[in-house]
Amino acid sequence: MSGSRVSRVVVTPVAFEDPPLLNVVGVHQPYALRAVVEVHTDDGLLGLGETYADETHLGRLDAVAAALPGHDPYDLHGLRLLVGDVLGRETGGGGASFGGMLDVDSALDTVVSPFEVACLDVQARAAGVPVSDLLGGAVRERVPFSGYLFHKWAGHPGHDDDAWGEALTPDQLVAQARRMVDGWGFGSLKLKGGVLPPDAECTAIEALRDAFPDLPLRLDPNGAWTVETSVAVADRLAGVVEYLEDPTPGIAGMAAVSARTDVPLATNMCVIAMEHLPPAIAQDAVQVVLSDHHLWGGLRRSALLGGITDVWGLGLSMHSNSHLGVSLAAMVHLAAATPNLTYACDTHYPWKTRDLLAGDPLPFVDGAVAVPTSPGLGVELDRDLLGELHDLYLSCGVRRREDTVYMRSIQPGFEVNTSRW
Amino acid sequence: MSGSRVSRVVVTPVAFEDPPLLNVVGVHQPYALRAVVEVHTDDGLLGLGETYADETHLGRLDAVAAALPGHDPYDLHGLRLLVGDVLGRETGGGGASFGGMLDVDSALDTVVSPFEVACLDVQARAAGVPVSDLLGGAVRERVPFSGYLFHKWAGHPGHDDDAWGEALTPDQLVAQARRMVDGWGFGSLKLKGGVLPPDAECTAIEALRDAFPDLPLRLDPNGAWTVETSVAVADRLAGVVEYLEDPTPGIAGMAAVSARTDVPLATNMCVIAMEHLPPAIAQDAVQVVLSDHHLWGGLRRSALLGGITDVWGLGLSMHSNSHLGVSLAAMVHLAAATPNLTYACDTHYPWKTRDLLAGDPLPFVDGAVAVPTSPGLGVELDRDLLGELHDLYLSCGVRRREDTVYMRSIQPGFEVNTSRW
Ligand SMILES: [Mg+2]
Ligand SMILES: [Mg+2]
Repeated sequence: MSGSRVSRVVVTPVAFEDPPLLNVVGVHQPYALRAVVEVHTDDGLLGLGETYADETHLGRLDAVAAALPGHDPYDLHGLRLLVGDVLGRETGGGGASFGGMLDVDSALDTVVSPFEVACLDVQARAAGVPVSDLLGGAVRERVPFSGYLFHKWAGHPGHDDDAWGEALTPDQLVAQARRMVDGWGFGSLKLKGGVLPPDAECTAIEALRDAFPDLPLRLDPNGAWTVETSVAVADRLAGVVEYLEDPTPGIAGMAAVSARTDVPLATNMCVIAMEHLPPAIAQDAVQVVLSDHHLWGGLRRSALLGGITDVWGLGLSMHSNSHLGVSLAAMVHLAAATPNLTYACDTHYPWKTRDLLAGDPLPFVDGAVAVPTSPGLGVELDRDLLGELHDLYLSCGVRRREDTVYMRSIQPGFEVNTSRW
Repeated sequence: MSGSRVSRVVVTPVAFEDPPLLNVVGVHQPYALRAVVEVHTDDGLLGLGETYADETHLGRLDAVAAALPGHDPYDLHGLRLLVGDVLGRETGGGGASFGGMLDVDSALDTVVSPFEVACLDVQARAAGVPVSDLLGGAVRERVPFSGYLFHKWAGHPGHDDDAWGEALTPDQLVAQARRMVDGWGFGSLKLKGGVLPPDAECTAIEALRDAFPDLPLRLDPNGAWTVETSVAVADRLAGVVEYLEDPTPGIAGMAAVSARTDVPLATNMCVIAMEHLPPAIAQDAVQVVLSDHHLWGGLRRSALLGGITDVWGLGLSMHSNSHLGVSLAAMVHLAAATPNLTYACDTHYPWKTRDLLAGDPLPFVDGAVAVPTSPGLGVELDRDLLGELHDLYLSCGVRRREDTVYMRSIQPGFEVNTSRW
């Protein structure tokens, strides 16, 4: 209706070096993949989005990119219909893989997301307002993030050690946390678990509690435990963690744990799409939902998730995968404009080795990022850096996230730890 | 963030002649009241909203109007906080009365609504797009409405008969429906019940079914019946009505009926705020929720309601009180941009005796209103008409909606029919 129409869409896969971060299904590969989506309009505007870049997902992004010219960037409902048409109403198979950790039933939300974000970026630039204004306005000027701690090796086998070093013991994790807190100012900490037996991970949390008595702590074993173990860990860490994230797999399992503990249970695994909310709520399976605009179909759908958690009295936090600055900008605008997003957001950003933004528009100060006040997302691409990261994508050989496959190339007998303990 | 700020807010109460429409709590007074809200910005834009005008509500509107200058029209979350502050976080008493039919626990949503709509009108005018674009874009070009039939007297006592004449028998209601269908082209019909004993209202519905075999029909007695009677009516009208609206009061009562019939139950009485959704859904009390942006806190909150009904698989329809053209425009934009609003919307618009818009921007064709494609809501005030309706407000003597009080001035022994039969 604005007269403005999409004229050209460019999807650029990029790669960047990723440390050997350990998790329940294996270990991060040496390169993380992302796709940068550019939506150009016939009145000279450019909107940006960022998403996963597994080859299956890239194929879907390219198909949508080819179909999008002529679309009204304000027509977000129509975008969803268009993507659905392009996907042939496909419902089998995941929209993106997450190292085998998640499987979404439909690709629709993950494919819509970067285009929706880019269209909102266009709308906001056209109106001369930040994206947060299109989501009802920023309720906070700065968005706090949590420091995301990982068990890790000193380096990828066959590569030099990275700057972070090994983290397999409580002391090493405390040192990693110290570096996070000193370097970024994080006011809360999350430990990715599911790597070592639960006793070792509880000991690490207790060591973090001793070292950082005032910081809220979270532990996320990605479903590595049985219901019984989850209840035992909850008993042990009651009053120590602000929430336990996905201690055990599935809504029924989480509900069984929830019935036996007062420790809030959070999830980005058993509630990852709108259709999971009714059963999870009916069973009181979780007390905190982690939103993620990449997974939930964009910023407006994430605002809907925020509204739902508010109405049902659930907590709301934010999930992260390895990401670059376009995603960080979108996360900051969304969090700023979500009144009930009162937990610090997760981010892998300190683990990224480089970025593709012009300048340094999103610095972390005291563990928080100031909400951009310039039009749109408030970030621009550095074309040279984009080119470098695209070249790295072309040369690195990685075409999909395969944490388990990569782990088995190093430890042939590795089995995923889901429900192991 | 846009730099644009609210410079001046004008709240104008207006009145227009209203026919003697009968309902469960009495009868419409000779004059219906509305308030028109104008939000002017320092860059010369004007946004419009329309709401109730009971004197208590008007006092609250005036207080917000005085506090709003300087506010960023994009800051809708901040608007909600501002209204909450102005209301002193008041939670007792209704935000508006509805002839005694509804009581909302908090005035917040009803007071926010017209200012939110006006701010979205400003945003859309600034961007040069219709308001529907700010809600994700219109998914339909025309919004269908249902013809709203009322039991009524021939005229108000002491006044001349109105043009519609008496409607107290099935034949008279069929004649009224014929006039609605012939004049406006409505493709579905709703009968306001709760006036006569259930057998008489069922007979009227059956007469409408015979006269209009192809039109979907609805019956809304506003909680006039017991659970037993509601189940009996549902049995009788199964396959005849598309839904029964509020046959009995309260979530528990509706749940008891719902458990004993397959006829969908709709409500604009037991689910009228976000906090009613969790218990109503948990008890499967209703299958269709009627949205109403005046009551639910504006267009974005109504979009949230729409999303919630979609996620939980509930039907979504739209409620109406007596209203003028600014409200109609907002209803049309909202309905157009709500993909799952697939029922025809209710409207009292054919019963209004005059309006205050410039031109005739929202004509009914085949029972539907074309979604405006011009910037904002797509409607402008006719200042002369606004002045006339304001003068009528000043002279008419009505200061609040009091259907029962007015009815008792005519039938002194009248008792409201809630749960009567
Ligand atoms: Mg997680
Ligand atoms: Mg009703």
